[in-house]
Amino acid sequence: MDSPSPAPSARTAVRRQPDRGHYDREQVHAVLDEGLVAHVGLVTDHGPVVIPMLYGRAGSRLLLHGSTASRLMRGGAKGLDLCVTVTLVDGLVLARSAFHHSMNYRSVVVFGRATPVTDLDERRAALDLLVDHIVPGRGPDVRPPSEKELRATLVLALPLDESSVKMRTGPPIDEEEDLDRPTWAGVVPLATVPGAPLPAPDLRGDAEVPAYAARYRRPGLRPE
Amino acid sequence: MDSPSPAPSARTAVRRQPDRGHYDREQVHAVLDEGLVAHVGLVTDHGPVVIPMLYGRAGSRLLLHGSTASRLMRGGAKGLDLCVTVTLVDGLVLARSAFHHSMNYRSVVVFGRATPVTDLDERRAALDLLVDHIVPGRGPDVRPPSEKELRATLVLALPLDESSVKMRTGPPIDEEEDLDRPTWAGVVPLATVPGAPLPAPDLRGDAEVPAYAARYRRPGLRPE
Repeated sequence: MDSPSPAPSARTAVRRQPDRGHYDREQVHAVLDEGLVAHVGLVTDHGPVVIPMLYGRAGSRLLLHGSTASRLMRGGAKGLDLCVTVTLVDGLVLARSAFHHSMNYRSVVVFGRATPVTDLDERRAALDLLVDHIVPGRGPDVRPPSEKELRATLVLALPLDESSVKMRTGPPIDEEEDLDRPTWAGVVPLATVPGAPLPAPDLRGDAEVPAYAARYRRPGLRPE
Repeated sequence: MDSPSPAPSARTAVRRQPDRGHYDREQVHAVLDEGLVAHVGLVTDHGPVVIPMLYGRAGSRLLLHGSTASRLMRGGAKGLDLCVTVTLVDGLVLARSAFHHSMNYRSVVVFGRATPVTDLDERRAALDLLVDHIVPGRGPDVRPPSEKELRATLVLALPLDESSVKMRTGPPIDEEEDLDRPTWAGVVPLATVPGAPLPAPDLRGDAEVPAYAARYRRPGLRPE
């Protein structure tokens, strides 16, 4: 898991437990492509604000979207510093001691300033990409955004230049003197798993549940 | 879902889609008790930083813990403004139009300043509570923290006075003119689900997998 790439900036360098830090573009992309929700932080007059948002990835840019009425989106559009964090929880680490309990996870932290996507065609492409990030394969089935809808949507593009991955994997790491305790130790894996699709009550006709919904999977999700 | 309680402060009031905002203590607690990871935001010299952390809830306080070497924890201990967000993803909302795609979710946002838990007995109790938040029932089986471990751990208590819940539930809401499209619409439910526990490779003797790991469940998780 050693990363051949150095941290791209001082604030991006993982300081606590630096051996868990990685800066390879492929690793950043893999976590972003598997994740669903980003926690977007910025500074307002009231201090820091952290809001969950859907997102997408277009090459080396993270795309965020929201209403033109959203304070957070408007702040981002003005070029305020953002910190966007995406976290995947992979398991709970049960050690013999309370102190060594932990979590297996992968998280990406991106620092930077975003640019609004002003061109309507680019914005349309961004919304396509966002739908496809949430439900891969869904794009061609839906009505594309109207011009009115596009104009009501702010899309921000945040470069992934200043990004890092931090992860923990593997079993608990206990103190030598705790190993003889009779306590069970190990990992409880966790995954985000889909249930049976619930048709909309106003569904007309006999539209079948598409495969991308019936067998929904996140890209990169571990096989069942 | 109408909330009888008003927003406790201006910055806590849900502004976008205020009908999705709730301020009842019980609803805040339910989301925090089901969640595993908090995204903690604060402002550093480099701008906003958002970091995922494990947490626990003790009555009307959120407990965070980390190393005394953690910049984030040290900043929190100094009384910097924090914003802590916990998000549960309940489902993907597949509308007939790209524009109305959405997510069913519940998220809590807490604003405030934290106080370090300095008393070692209180800190011990806080770590017990953190272990029990991650794996309910685990506490009695593990070695409690030593004084050295307690001294290496910073615990912050953040009052839940300024907190809100925002949630979306239910089916997609489409434009009337899109209802006749042949596109399937509905919700793909999502849940965080445990896999079979993986014993630590250095497990000695024949410790059985405890029920809290073999049948791990988050409190409040929907029945399978």
